[in-house]
Amino acid sequence: MSTHIKHATPDFAVLDAIANRWSPYAYDGRGVEPAKLKQCLEAARWSASSYNEQPWSLILAQRENKAEWDKALACLLEANQGWVKHAGVLILTVAKKTFTYNGKPNRVAEHDIGLAMGNLSIQATALGLDAHQMAGVNLSVVRSTYNIPEGYDPVTAVAIGYAATKANAPDAELYERDTKPRTRKKLSEFVYAGSWGQTSPLVK
Amino acid sequence: MSTHIKHATPDFAVLDAIANRWSPYAYDGRGVEPAKLKQCLEAARWSASSYNEQPWSLILAQRENKAEWDKALACLLEANQGWVKHAGVLILTVAKKTFTYNGKPNRVAEHDIGLAMGNLSIQATALGLDAHQMAGVNLSVVRSTYNIPEGYDPVTAVAIGYAATKANAPDAELYERDTKPRTRKKLSEFVYAGSWGQTSPLVK
Repeated sequence: MSTHIKHATPDFAVLDAIANRWSPYAYDGRGVEPAKLKQCLEAARWSASSYNEQPWSLILAQRENKAEWDKALACLLEANQGWVKHAGVLILTVAKKTFTYNGKPNRVAEHDIGLAMGNLSIQATALGLDAHQMAGVNLSVVRSTYNIPEGYDPVTAVAIGYAATKANAPDAELYERDTKPRTRKKLSEFVYAGSWGQTSPLVK
Repeated sequence: MSTHIKHATPDFAVLDAIANRWSPYAYDGRGVEPAKLKQCLEAARWSASSYNEQPWSLILAQRENKAEWDKALACLLEANQGWVKHAGVLILTVAKKTFTYNGKPNRVAEHDIGLAMGNLSIQATALGLDAHQMAGVNLSVVRSTYNIPEGYDPVTAVAIGYAATKANAPDAELYERDTKPRTRKKLSEFVYAGSWGQTSPLVK
């Protein structure tokens, strides 16, 4: 069963799994095979982190377990619930705010969650899956639903599943959103050298 | 010229560029080829971000430009300067704190910098390079050195270069640090389901 593929248009060659990674809104309602899901989580596991703290905890909901699926879905902002409900897996990310080795604040805990979910997303793409990360999470609902203790903060959510084709999309409007071309700033707009706002000669 | 390779020991198969990505301390003093560097930056460019804000700006220093190299190096904490000086490229990351489309705070700007630098690091590994990210940056020195405007925050630094072998390491002590095995928590320690601290059956 094919899924929608939405290529980037890179100016310089990058790994297929990086070029082809995108964030769909229309999922086709299939679950994610446990073996593939473990590979995605394993990719996150080997991510870099400051002092190797690995500040990430992941609350995992698979659509096959309806009670847990509904519980996790209810933690998202309503606008996200509308499309995530067709995905196969939903992950809520939680950051430990202090370093375990000395108890001091970890300034980059959320940054390192981003790193780990980046690894996960690239691995998902390599396996024919599609991951969509979102900030649109009701953080206080996550905390109360799952009894997140002091010292830990909910950060984001990640949907994983199979992007729908036009034929198997749950909703024409969602599919329509997924047909828009992918756009990015040019390298010359954000790669500086010497001083702020001065484009590096490398990317001029 | 070979470089030191330090494999992960994944329990489930992941992309080579994810398994082989690691953060060296001993670089061999070579610069990074411009073509490869552009591929790394391009990988960051295509990263996901909340509302496609792309909140990252990157200040790039290549060791071939001594004045800019020294300027960027001086922004790191001293302990990091000692090893980064043998790398080929140093990037200082800066996050835009608000969304361009509505001016409101972007809670996940630093998270999204992490995502982008994760992409960059994986692409670096795929090209035979090694990236090492660090939080040990003197943030106020970055701000004053590069005149970072209000509304933007320096976040991290990333060294890129070629990991040294024992034979071409600049320093035996740095190389020694790089021979330690890579360690990670088990998936069962951080993948929960249903409630906080309850390991998901998937990874038991």
